Amino acid sequence: MAETTAPLFLRACRGERTEHTPVWIMRQAGRYLPEYRAIREQYDFLTTCRVPELACELTLQPVRRLGVDAAILFSDILIPVIAMGADVTFSPGPYLAQPIRTRAAVEALRVPDPTEAMPFVLDAVRAIRQELPPDVPLIGFAGAPLTMAAYLVEGGGSRNLARLKELLYHEPETADLLLDRCASTVARHLSEQIRAGAQAVMLFDTWAGLMSPVDIDRFVRPYARKVFDAIRQELGAPSAGVPFIYYAGDAAGWYDRCAETGATVIGLDWRSDLSQARRAIGPTVVLQGNLDPAVLFGPPSVIRERVSAVLASARPASDEHGPIGHVFNLGHGILPSTPPDHAKVLVDAVHERSARSC
Amino acid sequence: MAETTAPLFLRACRGERTEHTPVWIMRQAGRYLPEYRAIREQYDFLTTCRVPELACELTLQPVRRLGVDAAILFSDILIPVIAMGADVTFSPGPYLAQPIRTRAAVEALRVPDPTEAMPFVLDAVRAIRQELPPDVPLIGFAGAPLTMAAYLVEGGGSRNLARLKELLYHEPETADLLLDRCASTVARHLSEQIRAGAQAVMLFDTWAGLMSPVDIDRFVRPYARKVFDAIRQELGAPSAGVPFIYYAGDAAGWYDRCAETGATVIGLDWRSDLSQARRAIGPTVVLQGNLDPAVLFGPPSVIRERVSAVLASARPASDEHGPIGHVFNLGHGILPSTPPDHAKVLVDAVHERSARSC
Repeated sequence: MAETTAPLFLRACRGERTEHTPVWIMRQAGRYLPEYRAIREQYDFLTTCRVPELACELTLQPVRRLGVDAAILFSDILIPVIAMGADVTFSPGPYLAQPIRTRAAVEALRVPDPTEAMPFVLDAVRAIRQELPPDVPLIGFAGAPLTMAAYLVEGGGSRNLARLKELLYHEPETADLLLDRCASTVARHLSEQIRAGAQAVMLFDTWAGLMSPVDIDRFVRPYARKVFDAIRQELGAPSAGVPFIYYAGDAAGWYDRCAETGATVIGLDWRSDLSQARRAIGPTVVLQGNLDPAVLFGPPSVIRERVSAVLASARPASDEHGPIGHVFNLGHGILPSTPPDHAKVLVDAVHERSARSC
Repeated sequence: MAETTAPLFLRACRGERTEHTPVWIMRQAGRYLPEYRAIREQYDFLTTCRVPELACELTLQPVRRLGVDAAILFSDILIPVIAMGADVTFSPGPYLAQPIRTRAAVEALRVPDPTEAMPFVLDAVRAIRQELPPDVPLIGFAGAPLTMAAYLVEGGGSRNLARLKELLYHEPETADLLLDRCASTVARHLSEQIRAGAQAVMLFDTWAGLMSPVDIDRFVRPYARKVFDAIRQELGAPSAGVPFIYYAGDAAGWYDRCAETGATVIGLDWRSDLSQARRAIGPTVVLQGNLDPAVLFGPPSVIRERVSAVLASARPASDEHGPIGHVFNLGHGILPSTPPDHAKVLVDAVHERSARSC
């Protein structure tokens, strides 16, 4: 690769035609890797997030093993939640002994300065950039406001967000205050990650898929948009080349709204064809996704077949003109019992089957 | 109501313009009702399914309290699974000590004669029809083949259907045999429910929402279609006026495929606007849904507002011509902690806010 050329992943995120489709895997640094489990045998989860050397090592593991086209910071969406003042424990899932359900509890939450409250994340970003090959960019990330609020109000995972929705419907002003503080926290956190060296940022709206379009319009989209707008305002011109990726699980009912967050890349789960998503979202953003993670439990022949199907669904009607507009990924995090070899089959198949002349 | 006029729910399901939009509630016979809990204090769940007098009483409870426009049989989608020969226990969720994961295990499953293996369901249908007011039709139901197969292979609930998908990808022929037996079982079961007096039937594909469109086309839609086709073939002309309702949770990514099951009514969850679903599905089927069940945790004013929003999204572009094509429902089962009074607010609001001249 020529020294003057930006890494392939970044070029693809900007909608440029690339020599093959880039691929990375959500949760690529995770429990399916024996080298990850070896480190987790020595350190608990929060420690691996808080010690920059460990976060750096875990970030790099899948890059070494799989040859993916991007690295993603090893961290957790609860780190900023803790920095806001919430008392979170992992056992193993996140758990808040005192969920945030009153106006007073919301008002007591801080909008922390990330350089003071989460310096270890920024140290990790700097360390990772030192270690990464120059053609593998680093993606920073955070949870989207609705998803952070879901953890804060529910006090942990939830099947239906009943507590959060109770707050939205009974005290919308309190909900707005909470979402606003989450948005400000995340905007600062991502801005600092970019300053420390992250070359793209991703906002995970894992829980937004449980909301109806009415609530998406009222409580989800405006606050995701606020994050991206605030980063652009904070950083100005230096943020111009940085891809803003918005991932919402289970968003097939409101793809059109995803683009209205101001994201430049939309991450999709596996529940729809990319061609259908493209029709709903329009031509101006890049799509990221969307193989069913469970396909990696299939034999290599099925994995390769399904990779081809996703690549085909991402192809614009005329392959000769315009941007390719696709970053390959799973539609959700890789499952812990996935054979690591099958992740490698996936990465190689994407590279081989998308190779093209530029 | 004139004696010669079919009940409002059935007319709406046939796409006729009705004096108001009919409404019923998924899981309307359930734990949120104190009168339901009173019966469950005396009898375990399977007993309430197996004793026709109890199933009849539980079916009627919400009709009496809420004034809904349709009743749905009190039963469980695991009843035919048990009749196929699976060893299911409830503790409280369904659990199979020996999940069905091999060719031999699939071959050992029966396609039972429902009059012999589940006569209590048919007795319940007959008893309910005796007790129901003539203007409140009875909906029979069963689980769709994919959803039954999911329980059989996973051995219970699952977040990602990893075991089922492993079977689909490694042994597609075994999966086909399993899905085929489930489809035959369900077709017979629903045919007998119609013979016993059910005036509409509903196929619940609760788990299909975890599948990708490729797998929907291969393993979901053909087998749901097979059920409806087999009922039409078995019953002939008498099935012509019987609405066939297909409900798939989380199907916004493949609404177009829902209509290809041969259903005449499509039940939708709350994750999309009905207007968007209508665009994907086309004008020839009736839509059922799709209020977020969690809205019932909100105050009555919010419930009424959201009822109006769903009614508005169901309205055809020109309200003057053509069928209304809408049955009101929640987008998923009513949540156990819902205040019963709020369910009544919902039903009344639908009736009041959809009233129109015919």
